[in-house]
Amino acid sequence: MKLIILRSNLKEGLSAVERAVSDNNNLPILRNVLIKTYNNKIKIAATNLELGITKFTSGKIIEEGGITVPFSTLYSIVNNTDSERINLETKNNTLIFKTDNYEAKIQGVTEEEFPIIPKIENEDYNMEIEAPIFKDGVFKVVSAAQISEIRPEISGVLIDFQMTLMKLVATDAFRLAYKTINTNQFKHNFNHGFKVIVPLKTISEVVRIFGDNQPIKIYMDNTQILFKNEELELISRIIDGDYPDYEQIIPKGIETEIILNKDYLVNALKLVSNFAGRTNDIKLKIDEGSKVVEIYSVSQSLGENKYLIPAKIKGEKVSEISFNWRYLMDGLKAVDSENLLFGINGSVKPANIKSPEDESYSYILMPIKSV
Amino acid sequence: MKLIILRSNLKEGLSAVERAVSDNNNLPILRNVLIKTYNNKIKIAATNLELGITKFTSGKIIEEGGITVPFSTLYSIVNNTDSERINLETKNNTLIFKTDNYEAKIQGVTEEEFPIIPKIENEDYNMEIEAPIFKDGVFKVVSAAQISEIRPEISGVLIDFQMTLMKLVATDAFRLAYKTINTNQFKHNFNHGFKVIVPLKTISEVVRIFGDNQPIKIYMDNTQILFKNEELELISRIIDGDYPDYEQIIPKGIETEIILNKDYLVNALKLVSNFAGRTNDIKLKIDEGSKVVEIYSVSQSLGENKYLIPAKIKGEKVSEISFNWRYLMDGLKAVDSENLLFGINGSVKPANIKSPEDESYSYILMPIKSV
Repeated sequence: MKLIILRSNLKEGLSAVERAVSDNNNLPILRNVLIKTYNNKIKIAATNLELGITKFTSGKIIEEGGITVPFSTLYSIVNNTDSERINLETKNNTLIFKTDNYEAKIQGVTEEEFPIIPKIENEDYNMEIEAPIFKDGVFKVVSAAQISEIRPEISGVLIDFQMTLMKLVATDAFRLAYKTINTNQFKHNFNHGFKVIVPLKTISEVVRIFGDNQPIKIYMDNTQILFKNEELELISRIIDGDYPDYEQIIPKGIETEIILNKDYLVNALKLVSNFAGRTNDIKLKIDEGSKVVEIYSVSQSLGENKYLIPAKIKGEKVSEISFNWRYLMDGLKAVDSENLLFGINGSVKPANIKSPEDESYSYILMPIKSV
Repeated sequence: MKLIILRSNLKEGLSAVERAVSDNNNLPILRNVLIKTYNNKIKIAATNLELGITKFTSGKIIEEGGITVPFSTLYSIVNNTDSERINLETKNNTLIFKTDNYEAKIQGVTEEEFPIIPKIENEDYNMEIEAPIFKDGVFKVVSAAQISEIRPEISGVLIDFQMTLMKLVATDAFRLAYKTINTNQFKHNFNHGFKVIVPLKTISEVVRIFGDNQPIKIYMDNTQILFKNEELELISRIIDGDYPDYEQIIPKGIETEIILNKDYLVNALKLVSNFAGRTNDIKLKIDEGSKVVEIYSVSQSLGENKYLIPAKIKGEKVSEISFNWRYLMDGLKAVDSENLLFGINGSVKPANIKSPEDESYSYILMPIKSV
């Protein structure tokens, strides 16, 4: 292999595959990155056997070939070099990295020893969606998911594809977030709906590395999901298991409806949480007559505090309801509008946060049971 | 106590005293900050018994008094509040913090229980120096000092005051940095010279919290040093012990003199260090005839690399000399000029880094002995 590549292209490529590099000591080659000429492009790839990422970039190819070298060494050199053009050349099992005044000989391993990144067998069926729409949907729900060894099926984001619409869902059993993407926002050629659970790490990588300018194509088989555009391929195992019946959890009615300013509530949580205990427990008092929501917390050792927010309140009085303020904050952040609609169903049943103007996103949160 | 204070003033005051707050569990009051009216000013103070910092700020004082409250609670509230004006009021042992829509009652401890921050007994003798000059001098040397339990006398910066000049010196036995401040850059009314070792944490705080607009006044007695301006007082114990005879360590001659671009050397170190081992060992090869300095490192497992820098070289050839690249970098950073003068005395004796234009700063570095 012999080629010339712009520093910015090499850096972008390494950055794209970074999280697929493993630190597995039993299989040291997984700490390597593959650099290889392919169809007149330069292919940069890494895999940890669960997640594989490939980036295709351009450069001047003088001689075909490939090699694998330790990712961290190469990435650190690329980050620190100040030359725009980089010469890469293999000699035996060494990658020679050369600029005007610098030369590194990096010990590598032949590309033949690098694990083959799997492929989707049947690429006939796929869907295509504008990247900003998909990424925004993931962003809105992903904070509600959590890695769980006991319940692997919730350690990811559910794509619930129903032909004419698609729902992105995440939950950790204390809260649940969903975002609906309508049929006019994507194309597909599937002939039936499906549910697929995408691991948290995988979906986070999709959001991180896919640019906004090209649509994302999504392919699937029984064990894997592939996200790709013209430059990038990200393939991952999917999570095997039954996702909780989330529709059942969504509250049907609302006993107390509050409309209040989102930024005020964010400020209130930041302040009032100073006296919250280890359970992150803050309380709300809601009374239609008062026209304010009182947010407060009390600490045996530190003291107490309260914050008042003007609000439109309709329905039952709630004299005390407790929430984990961090969970509440996660839900708020995903609401795009200035005001939000906070629906409460007594101090035991799940509450519901959404935009008053947009039904497509909803964040369901369980209150903390009072001691 | 009852007063109104601007959020920015309270925040600045708390930020100034922050590092003097202790996390001592045996003496919980040291985790508190003192807020107290004093001479029509608001005094904010903290101490860990080794270091005491007091900030005087302004506000509208309605009723005199004082209290101590947990620093971290108050600081967090101040950082998160978005109101410009804050009402502070004491009631029993509670500090009431009030803005338009927020109220906190912070449990405190009476100011009488707060330790008295010591004073300098004899304030007759002092020196006065422009803050930027003093801070720049400290900045240039401080990276060479290191906390050492075995040799407490080097765990600080030496102020070597010689009536007509002052030297700031720091060393950790592997390297030594000094900066000379001349008589026209400070005023004093001492009648004899002295040497005082200021703890690393103290001197770092002086650099952090003293602004550039007012001169710094420095007072001393046998056990303490006081830095002050019109708003700030920082008092600290000094380190008891004999500072090493640093003048002896400074090389008298130079066997090989190199003049080279500082930024190139910084780049070279960043790159070449990728193959340096745990000892941070990089090597230099210097030959008058070649007109370049070669900086290189070799790793058994990763490979090897080298960087060439054009240089003016005069004197003995050095076929191999090793340095800890992190130490070398610390010295470089303090050189203000575009080029630097790197004086080498064979591969065993200390080398010397300075600006070719400025004799006042010098960084002496021991080579690593080759195995």
